[in-house]
Amino acid sequence: MTGPGAKDFTIDSFHRGRFRLVQPSRGHRAGMDAMILAAAVPGSFSGWLADLGAGAGAAGLAVASRCSQARIRLVERSPQMAECARRGLTLPENRELAGRVDVLEADVTLSGRARVEAGLADRSFDFAIMNPPFNAPADRATPDELKRLAHVMEDGLLEGWLRTAAAIVVPRGGLAVIARPALLHALISAIGARFGSAALIPVHPRADAPAIRIVVRAWRGARRALEIHPPLVLHDEAGKLLPQADAIINGRASLFGD
Amino acid sequence: MTGPGAKDFTIDSFHRGRFRLVQPSRGHRAGMDAMILAAAVPGSFSGWLADLGAGAGAAGLAVASRCSQARIRLVERSPQMAECARRGLTLPENRELAGRVDVLEADVTLSGRARVEAGLADRSFDFAIMNPPFNAPADRATPDELKRLAHVMEDGLLEGWLRTAAAIVVPRGGLAVIARPALLHALISAIGARFGSAALIPVHPRADAPAIRIVVRAWRGARRALEIHPPLVLHDEAGKLLPQADAIINGRASLFGD
Repeated sequence: MTGPGAKDFTIDSFHRGRFRLVQPSRGHRAGMDAMILAAAVPGSFSGWLADLGAGAGAAGLAVASRCSQARIRLVERSPQMAECARRGLTLPENRELAGRVDVLEADVTLSGRARVEAGLADRSFDFAIMNPPFNAPADRATPDELKRLAHVMEDGLLEGWLRTAAAIVVPRGGLAVIARPALLHALISAIGARFGSAALIPVHPRADAPAIRIVVRAWRGARRALEIHPPLVLHDEAGKLLPQADAIINGRASLFGD
Repeated sequence: MTGPGAKDFTIDSFHRGRFRLVQPSRGHRAGMDAMILAAAVPGSFSGWLADLGAGAGAAGLAVASRCSQARIRLVERSPQMAECARRGLTLPENRELAGRVDVLEADVTLSGRARVEAGLADRSFDFAIMNPPFNAPADRATPDELKRLAHVMEDGLLEGWLRTAAAIVVPRGGLAVIARPALLHALISAIGARFGSAALIPVHPRADAPAIRIVVRAWRGARRALEIHPPLVLHDEAGKLLPQADAIINGRASLFGD
């Protein structure tokens, strides 16, 4: 690999060692969000799944690790992150997954002909997942900044991501998104208009604390009222990962029980 | 009381006997929804609260029972239900509450001058609660009917209720609504436009079942991102009411912990 030396990258283990990820040492690093998102895909899923804004490929590889019939396309705009993703697929530890995963360097927000020419053809995937990158800088955001971010999303960026997801997914295809609770309204609006029914799972750090993330899953063309599933609670009062959260984060269980 | 005879009414006990409700024997009967809604009001609340679409007054009386500093106006359009509410206030068992509660026979969906003339003046309440009646017929609704109901709400009825709530509440005044999860999107849209920050609590019949109700609370003019609180779970696996749910339904605890 060209560019920065090996010391600028780390190799991190996920799903208790079942796959590894090559990531830049600095900047946003994949973690629980990507693992939780991947767990929103049914375990029996087979077909093509697009990981939109895949970064180094954490969520997509986690789907490949858990869903043995899934084929994954990691879609990433940043050449550096796409290179991390490609390099990850060459690791010997990822040998069993690598044959079902490839990397597409493309901007998720493209539309129309430009999107198709970038490799994102209409109705070419059975499922799309996304962990929009605007989650990361908001981790230390003030309430005002969060509000602003939510508005940015409402003003078009989230809409652009969901437009692409809706375009590339087949009828009855699936979508799963992980985001902050502040985006709930924008997310349900955009998903309601482009998909059909949606199901929501709030993610709480502890049983008594407000949600820090939401996962919304939808099926294109389905027509049912919104469902709110029981929440995912991550830690007990002592800060220990709870069994169900541990199973979900390590690829042993499905978030929606399927 | 004129009209139907005594056998057409029942007197039901709530909050472990701390207040009673006169209700028609037939039709929608108040229960857990009204008690949960009332628990969304902070225990320390003082000032005037409007129970919009109060029916026989279950939620409003439950607030009066738990919040000793609250003064309640039961706003109800149906002459029969308003008469039930008035009759309830004459019961000896309600003597301690009755001095802080009155009944206004008015249509919540009125607007402008008509609303003011009906007795709902601008900025005249500190808090509004509502348990919109369209919950009831949907109890046995099919998914299609639920979808239709949700659209009806989006098309104006819910909007009308929230318009009135926003008009009659002072700046920094509160709002609490209980509704079905299918209404989440319409509710957050309408509340976001007219109030500010909102907090959501899903209500699950059991820990492993989808939510059957949502409670949304907002403060007029506040500016914070949406919060999703831990859910209220009603029953254990054997169908027994859980301690926290029992405390909330019986006026011994607050839904939002305040």
